[in-house]
This record gives sequence, structure tokens and C-alpha cells, in this order.
Amino acid sequence: MRKIVLGFDFGTLSCRGVAVDLQSGVRVAQSQCDYAHGVIAGCLPDGGPDLPDSWFLQDPDDWMNSLTAVCRDMLTQGGIMPEEVTALGIDFTSCTLVPIKADGTPLCTLEAYRRRPHAWPKLWKHHGAQKQADRIEALAREETDWLSSHFGNSVSSEWAYPKMMQVAEEAPDIYEAADYFIEAVDYIPMVLTGRILRNNGVLGVNAFYIEGRGYPDETFAAKLNPLMRHVAEDKLAGEIGRVGDAVGCVRPEMAVRLGITDKVVVSVGNSDGAVAGCGVGANESGTMMLVMGTSTCHQFMYRDFHSFDGLCSIAADGMVPGLYGYESGQSATGDIFAWYVDSMAPESVTKAAAEAGLSPLEYLGREAEKLLPGECGLMGLDWLNGNRSILSNYDLSGCLLGLTLNTSPVEIYRALVEANIYGSRRILDNYEENGITISTIFGVGGIAVKCPWIMQMCADVFNKPVRVPLHDNVPALGSAATAAVALFKSGDEDGCDGFGEAASRLIPGEAVVYEPDPFKAALYRPVYELYRTLHDLFGVENSLMKELRALKHNAVSMK
Amino acid sequence: MRKIVLGFDFGTLSCRGVAVDLQSGVRVAQSQCDYAHGVIAGCLPDGGPDLPDSWFLQDPDDWMNSLTAVCRDMLTQGGIMPEEVTALGIDFTSCTLVPIKADGTPLCTLEAYRRRPHAWPKLWKHHGAQKQADRIEALAREETDWLSSHFGNSVSSEWAYPKMMQVAEEAPDIYEAADYFIEAVDYIPMVLTGRILRNNGVLGVNAFYIEGRGYPDETFAAKLNPLMRHVAEDKLAGEIGRVGDAVGCVRPEMAVRLGITDKVVVSVGNSDGAVAGCGVGANESGTMMLVMGTSTCHQFMYRDFHSFDGLCSIAADGMVPGLYGYESGQSATGDIFAWYVDSMAPESVTKAAAEAGLSPLEYLGREAEKLLPGECGLMGLDWLNGNRSILSNYDLSGCLLGLTLNTSPVEIYRALVEANIYGSRRILDNYEENGITISTIFGVGGIAVKCPWIMQMCADVFNKPVRVPLHDNVPALGSAATAAVALFKSGDEDGCDGFGEAASRLIPGEAVVYEPDPFKAALYRPVYELYRTLHDLFGVENSLMKELRALKHNAVSMK
Repeated sequence: MRKIVLGFDFGTLSCRGVAVDLQSGVRVAQSQCDYAHGVIAGCLPDGGPDLPDSWFLQDPDDWMNSLTAVCRDMLTQGGIMPEEVTALGIDFTSCTLVPIKADGTPLCTLEAYRRRPHAWPKLWKHHGAQKQADRIEALAREETDWLSSHFGNSVSSEWAYPKMMQVAEEAPDIYEAADYFIEAVDYIPMVLTGRILRNNGVLGVNAFYIEGRGYPDETFAAKLNPLMRHVAEDKLAGEIGRVGDAVGCVRPEMAVRLGITDKVVVSVGNSDGAVAGCGVGANESGTMMLVMGTSTCHQFMYRDFHSFDGLCSIAADGMVPGLYGYESGQSATGDIFAWYVDSMAPESVTKAAAEAGLSPLEYLGREAEKLLPGECGLMGLDWLNGNRSILSNYDLSGCLLGLTLNTSPVEIYRALVEANIYGSRRILDNYEENGITISTIFGVGGIAVKCPWIMQMCADVFNKPVRVPLHDNVPALGSAATAAVALFKSGDEDGCDGFGEAASRLIPGEAVVYEPDPFKAALYRPVYELYRTLHDLFGVENSLMKELRALKHNAVSMK
Repeated sequence: MRKIVLGFDFGTLSCRGVAVDLQSGVRVAQSQCDYAHGVIAGCLPDGGPDLPDSWFLQDPDDWMNSLTAVCRDMLTQGGIMPEEVTALGIDFTSCTLVPIKADGTPLCTLEAYRRRPHAWPKLWKHHGAQKQADRIEALAREETDWLSSHFGNSVSSEWAYPKMMQVAEEAPDIYEAADYFIEAVDYIPMVLTGRILRNNGVLGVNAFYIEGRGYPDETFAAKLNPLMRHVAEDKLAGEIGRVGDAVGCVRPEMAVRLGITDKVVVSVGNSDGAVAGCGVGANESGTMMLVMGTSTCHQFMYRDFHSFDGLCSIAADGMVPGLYGYESGQSATGDIFAWYVDSMAPESVTKAAAEAGLSPLEYLGREAEKLLPGECGLMGLDWLNGNRSILSNYDLSGCLLGLTLNTSPVEIYRALVEANIYGSRRILDNYEENGITISTIFGVGGIAVKCPWIMQMCADVFNKPVRVPLHDNVPALGSAATAAVALFKSGDEDGCDGFGEAASRLIPGEAVVYEPDPFKAALYRPVYELYRTLHDLFGVENSLMKELRALKHNAVSMK
């Protein structure tokens, strides 16, 4: 009988799964299922007040339905017998935070809370807690040293504390009604096993958790909101494990639902960014993962704890056990390109694309690739969803400079892509300028796989090789690897004894390596310098973007 | 018998005419005829070398054919007897420069020069002489004081000296073969009457002519090019008159061609921008004309000579006799909006417009009007064709700041329109900050007539009323008024004794007056302040746009 491990990757819009044969390492099935409600914005499915622009929620039922569909589809596709499945792992977007009852019931599924926005899971990109983030940051800068030592000295509105604090302030009854707030990363394993075992690395990124210290103390918490004094002991209660640990076995009723047995081991969940390292088999200090999709996560594994400004966080065991996981990121990449097609690409582009039998993005990419560095005559700033790293400022916005009456759509698209890669280089520079050597760069995610010209641009702009594994569904495969490690820890010797073994047994080694083109790298050098100047001009030296946003808010409030 | 005056307005693509009854002031006919070759770009009609991108030429035969068609059509339409026509006036784009033989034959109509680009009239927007303009500017700044006192301390590549110098350098044989270079403004009256009587105001804008001094001296001219030492006495020879003067009567052969008599008085020509003042009946010191079309000309009439930085030029009698004509401008307005539709408006906009039965610009305008000042969340710089005033820098380019993933096409369009009006306000501010009071503002041109919401925005942003006359064909009517004044000077007492009388007899007084809305004016104030900050940031404080352009040129040169 085969032994199969399953990995499930919960992205922003869908759940993807892979099934891997533990003995051969062969992927025997994969599947995908969109969430019925996708991202919830504007209004709730069953009514209630309008949601502000910065609000993004999700429906936990969508997650479980997609998980079930993907799991059952893989069993069918791969001819997998229920008893062949030995373990499963999951990863999820983060910080996606779910208010639940003690038994795991999400508040939003209860009739009393169905039309209350704060009862719903806040998706990672929910930016409604910016005010709270600002106040937490101010307080932590004033009164603590851990913000600068572990969290880049700034607080993202995407993290757990701002999200919880927003609930405590704006809907205290819901804050009280929630027995726990739990990362979706940890929620799915909880639903499957009945046990909470939170991932220390994810908490170390998003919940001010520091290995050895734990969460911030109650004095600090109480200053955020009196309701939050005991947040660490109540709302965030639960055991803490690390990547590759086993949470437990699937509960019988969930086993029936998924079509597997209740012997299946469930591993500790992980964030979809951090798990990419496992998904490409990386476990060496000095490895940088660029996870390029709707946004870009820069996930870096390193032997030492070495804090500096401009990081999002440093968490023990953040990617693989035994190494620190450094996290940085850009809050929009593919989202910007999709926005361009929807909001800026003229009919001439959509027509030419259709005539060439290509999607607009494929057509634009084909044409944009023909331009040399700097030839578009434009410089952009890639902050259309704010700046996560290195400035951690969501009041920043995008910019296009150099427009003329001769500027073409292809040039604009190229400028947006270039700006994004310059933004990525700016993050890498920040590591190097703080004395950390990046020895290997992996590119993964939708863009890495679908857009070779963008990956070549990365290599040219970074002036370093970029390695793109040939296999797809990297995060799901990483989750399958965590399942295999958890299986071994649970006593099944057919599992993998650590992530090194998981890498060699389960992760295909084939990759495209994009080598920098010296001619283009030389052309990019002064263009990138100009990006840096513009970056500092609007990101550091003046506050025009913030003022512009304030003027917008003021105008909206007049209506 | 009626007495009729005709006015002809030669624009970039067509000639428009009006026929006005001198006694009643009633417009009895109007007509329009496109030029057969429109704007000549890319290559000449009968072959020859390819034309560089920045080259724009016209065919003088097109002008005469359109003039003839328009004139004859008006006679037919209005039931006008040949002997009823008493005078005609013309205006033309400027500086559109024609190399001619002494008898008025354009060089380009001679077989020997037909395929020689430099033998053709260079249209106002020909930018092929940028290098020459730069060198003239450098020399004049170094060695003269008249550039700063009369021409805003900078030289436009659109003016006569750069255009002549380009011929002298690149085709010296054509420079020698041309007996005269003549503005099209002055060329048409010459063809009609056989006499050269140049307009002093137009020369004062485009040919370094200063009333009382004349053209630059031969030492200066010789430094531009040895061939040009005597340019003032030979190529620019001819009497100089002023607006409202009579050049003479129509030559018999031209009278036959046009279907009128050889008693018809022809007035001194004028530029299509400057004549707008006559066309709305303005003749008071302190009147600002915004001529808003593809670009915006700011034409201001003022009793005193008062030079300051940021002007294009100050010319005696520049708009009406006895007042100085001040000129400033924005090098693109309608061109930017058209570019937006072609290059940035997505299919969703063109579809919604079609469904609403509107053009894309009409639809965008209708939607953009609904936003409050600042609500778009964007700030633009309107320099997509460089900055004419107040920076006189064609290395500047456009900019959009504040883009987010929620930015809509309508918001982008609104930002481009707002930026243009802020740019216009910046020009008006420059007058006021230099102690000149603007007492009345007129808006004319295609945008003033077609886009009420933009004119309301002008009033709100300027916080001053803006008067838009209801009648169309303003420049052609202004030319008819100059004809009526010239008729009086020629001894016919049924003509108009000056432009004050012409205004009251010939120009309809009806106008829409856009009054500033105090609520919106207050909202615009901080938004405009932000524009000023951004304006100075890229226009004065840093050279990023210039560097960006240099990088583009460098990249193109590598191909």
C-alpha cells in the first residue's frame, strides 16, 4: 500500500492541494477550488452595514468547503484509497484572524453575529486597523525595546494585535463574545483535530510573540484597551508548537467529510509565505525566497538573530526549525498588474491581445520585454497598496513619473513591473547594507512560474542569479513536506526525519536559473539609483502622499 | 446694399470663416474646410527623405484652397453679392513660418524644392529646432538683456529664429534661396494684396522684435550662423504694421478666385491666440483670455510694460492696439485628455460610454464632475508636453501621484483635468504675485464651449468668475473685427473706429459666467497648495524628470 501525504495551500481566492507518494516522492494528484465568496468587500453576504473601503473579510465555511472539494477530487484523481493517506499539512494567508467560540465555531456562523462585520475573519489585507496599528507602534516605541529588536520598529495594520484592538474598540461585545482569536493558519488544524496548537513562527511574525518571552505583558496590553489586559491568557490561549510538529489526528466526523480516515496526522499550520522554503527544499542559512503572487513576500532563513530597521519581523523557527525566519515584503505585485489591466489598459491593448490569441497580461509582457532598461522613460513607485518593507507605511501610494503624449500603454505596464522589481531590490539591499549576505535567491509563486521575462528582470536588476523551481504549487508541496515531518514525529518511520530529508525525498530539484545579463545589469544600475532617489523623496523626505490621502478623506467626509 | 466683413481663422487642421453684417452685427454665414494634407509628418506628399518625429509641416496650397472654399461657401450660404464684401481679416497659428521668393511663391511649390523638407512651411508645433533654440537661449542669456526683459528669459523651439537657424544650418542652400521668411499670419495677406505688412505683435512674440528697437542686431545674428548676419534686413524685410491696420486691397486675380471684388480691404493678420481678445470684444487692461483647446494660451492685455520671470513674451500691441500683449501658456490641455482616452482609458470606460450614448470624454466628464475637490486622491503634473509657463522647460514630463489598487479610471481622468487647471492657476498666480491684477477672465476655445464642468472647475480653482462667450468661432469673428477696423482706417466710415466700437457693434455680449462656488473653492485651496509643492519639487528643486529622459535617450541609443 502506498503512503500518501497531502498538502493544502489556502490563498486569497482559492485552496490548492497536492498529494504526494511518500516512498517515490511522485506527485500523484493536485486540485484547486475557489472560495464561493472570494474576498468579502463592500457588504456581507447576508446583509448588514456597508463595509469601508479598507475592509476585507472571508467566510470560514468557504475554506472548509474548498478543502473538502480539493481533498475529495485528489482522492478520485489519484485513485487514492482513504487508508493510503497518512498525514496532511496546511498553509494559509497570514495574518487572517478568526474570532471563534471555544469549540471552534466561528462567531460569524452564529445567527446573532451573522450581520456584524467584526464577527467575520479579517483577511490578511484588511487595512481597517491602521489607526490602531499607529497607536500600538507609538506606544511600543515609547515603552518597549522588543519592537525594534524583533519587528522592524513598526507595526503593520495587517497583524493580529491591531486587528484584535479594532474589534475591542469598535465592537467590544464581539471582542468579549470571542473565546479565542486564532490565525486561520491554526484554525484549520484546530477544526480538523479539535486541538489548538499554534505555530510559533507565525505568532512571531504577526502577534508580537517572542520565543522565550511569549506575548507582550498585561501592562502593555491594557494600555491598548482595558479589555485586552489578559489577551495573552484568554484570546490567544492555546499550546504553541513549531513547524513540522503534529497537532493530532483528524477527528472522525472530519475524516468522513474529507473521505479519509481518522488516523491521518495533521501537522502544525504555516503561513503561505513561510512554507515556500519547505516547498522548494531550502534549508540553508542565507537563502532568500521571493514569493511573487498578488503580493511579494521576502522570506529569508538565517542562522543568527540580527535585527535592523526595515524588516517586518524575525521569528525563531520562522520557516524551518532551527533557523530564524526573517520576513519582509511588498504589499502588492500581481495585484498591481491586474489593476493595470482593469483600470488603465486601453481598448487597443485588449484588441491586440485578442488578435494575438493572448491574455492582456501575456500580450503586455511580450511587448514590454522588448524594451531596454530605462527605455520606457517612466519611473514608478510600487506602493499602490502601501509600503510594507522597508518603510512600513500604508499611507504611501503609487506614482508614475515621466508621462508624455508619446507614452504608450506598454511603456506604462513596463514601468509598473520595473518599479516592483526595484522595490524588491531595495529590500534585498537593506539586508546586504546591514551586513547580511544573501547567498541564494529562489523565485516562487504565480509570477515566478508564468513570467520568465520578469524573473530575468529580477536577475538583471539584482545582478544575481535567481532560481525558479520547475514545479508548481510550491506552498502546497511545502505543506505536504511538513505533514511528512509531522508523520515521522508521530512515530511512522516512513515519514521524513526533518526538513533536509523531506527536501531530498519529496521536492523535485529541477529549476530554471536566471543568470544576470551584464549588459542589462549595467543599464539598470543608474535607473535603479533614480528609483532609490524617488523612493526616499516620497517615502522619507516629504509627506505629500499622506497629505493627499488626508485630502481625499476630508473630501469624502463632506459628501 | 449690405456691407459685409469676413473673418478667416486658420487653425492646425482647417480654415474657419464667418461673414458679419457691418450695420446689424448679425453673423450671416459661417463655413469651414479641412486642409487636404492636414499636418504633414513622417514624409512629404511627393516624396523625399523621411521626416524626424519632431517635424510638422504644412502645404501653403492647402491654405489657399481652404480659404477659397470657405469664402465661396459663405457667399452662397449668406446670399452675399460680391460687391457687398467690404473687408476681410485673417488669423493663423503662430509661429508657422514660410520660406518664400520675393513674389510670394513658397519655395516648396517650386519643382526644385518640392522634395526638400526645409523648403516647406514649419508648423507652430514643429519641435525640430530644439537644439537651435537651446543655443540661442544660451547666447542671449549670456550677451543680452532683452531676453529676460521681453521673452521670459527663454527661447521656445517653436519661434522664428530657431526655425530659421535650423534651415541655415541643415539646408544652407534653401536658406539662401528664400528671399523672405514670413509668418503664415502675414503670408496670407501678402498673397491676397501683393504687399508685405507684418504684424508687430506677432513678431514681438515669436521673432525677438521689440517695438522701437526692432530685431536683434547683426552681431548677435551672425553668432547664430554667419549666413544670418543680415537676417533682419533681408529674410525678415518688409513693412511692419499693427493689428487693425490695412495691408491693401485684394489683387484682381485673387478677387476672382475668392468670388469677391478688388475693392475688398485686407487687414493685418494676427495669431489665432492673440485675436481671441478681439473675438470676445475685450479691450480693457487687465483682461486675461484662456484659449483652451489642444493646448492653453494665456493671453493678457495690460496698459504697462512690466516684465517678470515665467512669461513667454510681452509685445506692444500684442492683442489690441495700445495695450501690451502678455503671453503665457500650457503646452498641452485637450491633447492630454485625448491621450488619456487613447492610452489609458480601459474597455470598461469605452463600453459604459457607448451604453450611455456618449463619447468616452463626455462620459468621463459626466462621471468626473461628481467628485469633490481632492476626492480622487491623486495629484498630477500636467507637463505631458513639457512646461511652457512658468518654467519653460520641455524636459519636464507628466506625473500621477497617489495611485492605489482602488483608483478608478474616472479618478485618473479627473486628476489629469484638475492638474491642468492647477497649472493654469499657477500661471495666473505668477501675474498676481508680480503685482499685476487680473480683473476679468474669459474662457474661449473648444474646451471652454464643450465642457461646462471644466469651466466651473476653473472658476472654483481660481476663485474668480470665468466668462465664456456663447458664440462660437471666436478667432474668426476677431479677424472680422480687425477687418472692420482696417476698413474704417481705409476711409469707409461704415467700418469700426477702433476695437471698442468693433466690440460693441460686432461681438455678441451673451456669455455664461461661471461664478466660484465658495464651498468648492475652499476645498480646492489645500489641494492646490499641494500641487504647488509638487510643481516646485519636480520643476525647481530636483532634476529627476530630466535624468529620466536622459536614461531613455541612452537606452534608445543602445538599440
